[in-house]
Amino acid sequence: MNKLHPATTRRLAAQAALLDRPNAPDPRWDNGWFERFVHPVLTKDHVPLSWRYDLNPATNPLAMERLGVNAVFNSGAIELDGAVHLVARVEGNDRKSFFGLARSENGIDRFRFVGGPIVLPETADPDINVYDMRLVRHEDGWIYGLFCTERKDPSAPPGDTSSATAQCGVVRTRDLATWERLPDFRSPSPQQRNVVLHPEFIHGQYGFYTRPQDGFIDTGKGGGIGWGLSASMKPAEVKEETIIHPRAYHTVYEVKNGQGPAPVKTPAGWLHLAHGVRACASGLRYVLYVFLTDLADPSKLLRVPSGFFLAADFQERVGDLVNVAFCNGVVARADGTVLIYYASCDTTLHVARTSLDQLVDYALNTPEDPLRTGLCAAQRHSLWQRNEAFAGA
Amino acid sequence: MNKLHPATTRRLAAQAALLDRPNAPDPRWDNGWFERFVHPVLTKDHVPLSWRYDLNPATNPLAMERLGVNAVFNSGAIELDGAVHLVARVEGNDRKSFFGLARSENGIDRFRFVGGPIVLPETADPDINVYDMRLVRHEDGWIYGLFCTERKDPSAPPGDTSSATAQCGVVRTRDLATWERLPDFRSPSPQQRNVVLHPEFIHGQYGFYTRPQDGFIDTGKGGGIGWGLSASMKPAEVKEETIIHPRAYHTVYEVKNGQGPAPVKTPAGWLHLAHGVRACASGLRYVLYVFLTDLADPSKLLRVPSGFFLAADFQERVGDLVNVAFCNGVVARADGTVLIYYASCDTTLHVARTSLDQLVDYALNTPEDPLRTGLCAAQRHSLWQRNEAFAGA
Repeated sequence: MNKLHPATTRRLAAQAALLDRPNAPDPRWDNGWFERFVHPVLTKDHVPLSWRYDLNPATNPLAMERLGVNAVFNSGAIELDGAVHLVARVEGNDRKSFFGLARSENGIDRFRFVGGPIVLPETADPDINVYDMRLVRHEDGWIYGLFCTERKDPSAPPGDTSSATAQCGVVRTRDLATWERLPDFRSPSPQQRNVVLHPEFIHGQYGFYTRPQDGFIDTGKGGGIGWGLSASMKPAEVKEETIIHPRAYHTVYEVKNGQGPAPVKTPAGWLHLAHGVRACASGLRYVLYVFLTDLADPSKLLRVPSGFFLAADFQERVGDLVNVAFCNGVVARADGTVLIYYASCDTTLHVARTSLDQLVDYALNTPEDPLRTGLCAAQRHSLWQRNEAFAGA
Repeated sequence: MNKLHPATTRRLAAQAALLDRPNAPDPRWDNGWFERFVHPVLTKDHVPLSWRYDLNPATNPLAMERLGVNAVFNSGAIELDGAVHLVARVEGNDRKSFFGLARSENGIDRFRFVGGPIVLPETADPDINVYDMRLVRHEDGWIYGLFCTERKDPSAPPGDTSSATAQCGVVRTRDLATWERLPDFRSPSPQQRNVVLHPEFIHGQYGFYTRPQDGFIDTGKGGGIGWGLSASMKPAEVKEETIIHPRAYHTVYEVKNGQGPAPVKTPAGWLHLAHGVRACASGLRYVLYVFLTDLADPSKLLRVPSGFFLAADFQERVGDLVNVAFCNGVVARADGTVLIYYASCDTTLHVARTSLDQLVDYALNTPEDPLRTGLCAAQRHSLWQRNEAFAGA
């Protein structure tokens, strides 16, 4: 083997210690819904040195980083060959994101990136940025990856360096190693984000969760989590979108909401993890919430427990953003364990561990939101009264 | 000596310990580009008690602070008599900034404010706020200080208490003790920020880096880092601005950019530290980036390594703002060491230590930004492949 720079040897040893670090539940978090963990599962420091440094001292005598990584976050998740695989959003110092595949046996710690940075095939209209892949094993036999593809808005006036358009890109694979690019998803909405494939055929068609929006960031008059069907994946085209769960005044999804990963099948219905967004003095606050839809017809809303299920807390609160939790990956294991991969503040990736039983209990027994303070207080007062009666008995 | 209040004695002892505290490189940061340090070099707690308290127990029996200081940040920097001198932006609790001179032998720790708060001479149109001085030792023999001067917009409609105009104020000195005010800088742009004097004559004229903008915060259709020449400093007037480095879609300088301190002369060209700004869900994110211009003609861009060079990290991420790194002071010492004084979140001032060799290596050998994810991923994939071949050999 070629001789390494001493700084490289030092960095490899530091990274090996990080990659082997065990993770454990965080005792500060204890509400019965899920376990938090002491450490994130993926950070920028988990990215292989070979993706960032030129390891050859002849061409890099000062052992300088050549292509920095700013963050590793919003990851698709899937179980394959008994191990958890994540397709993570890796953001370079140049602000462009790409995907990287990471693998762990237990899904809690010792995640390692495998292979090189993923170079996705492009369409005729090259992506300027790609991110937030949702991985779904569909009953047609393929693993699909749906992701946001961003391009500069061709109608932006001169001097406008920011206006962009968001659409849904589609790839498929059998092994997470070879990726076939399919045409971008089409819908009646001028822009799309958070498009997710339903894992089963519905009426013999492919089902899609959508998030119609008027602008690149603003959802405009529309918004809400939509639903539509397509006869094919080549191309995937939804001609009609219906809103399953709309935005609502003075909720945690007042400004925007969007489907997270594909829903998890439970005896009580399809269990959805979604993100809700509200505005505050420090910008947009993203939290995760839950809703339940009908097993036979996933566009039929059954129940929405009130408020958020998970918000950034402790060290998760601060990253490139503040107070942002986002999830586009979940793994339901055969033993009933559910692993939720949530990112904090566009910076690091964490896992929350729960179970189908806990999620169903949460979805069915958390009160629904009565949408005004007096009724919320009364709801809580009634809970308190029942507890007073119970404790006094 | 007059007797002090016990609280004053206690505060003086606490401050003496802070001012004597040694600083050391932060082992958490290790990418070969620069060293970070464990402690900031200037904070509000470094400001002399005599600038904030009435120390006389007869007139201040409760030992109350009389004029609070909110933050110490964006500082001009210069070497004088073998020591590093900073002209720091000191912001009072009243939100108005003024300048304070601080000095350290090694430029890494033990910075102390010297003299009193600087009272700058005014022009006929008094400054409402001043900040972000760039100190330059020009080859004409003077040390110039260029800073932003802010005044209320005279065309603001009634009830608009916010609209302001930004222009560049100019002072000069020989000793950092006596300051002569010169007329404000003039240019074709309605407003100016981040104006910096080039240290050498170019074609026998004074050279200026500018940042033309339409509004007080918005750069509008213009923006980018500009360049212009002036025959005189009394007044400094640029009649024509050309853009050296424009903003660009989906980069770290998508929304705004601006020259940091005056560029550092290196064998490879003038090395510029600039700030780039992009919008995100939590407001504006400021990072520092690097570019190189021609030694004979600093308006000629030679190379722009991709992405950011320095972003707020660790405890720097949170202050009055979030995720803001800004630099308007750098000192290149005779031994090749370069000290970069960067502020975090408009709150505290830090130092990064690097060298001319590292900066030139970074500027010449960091790949340039291919501006779309597919090419960025391919760039990184190629780096990985070269490393795989090298490590396997």
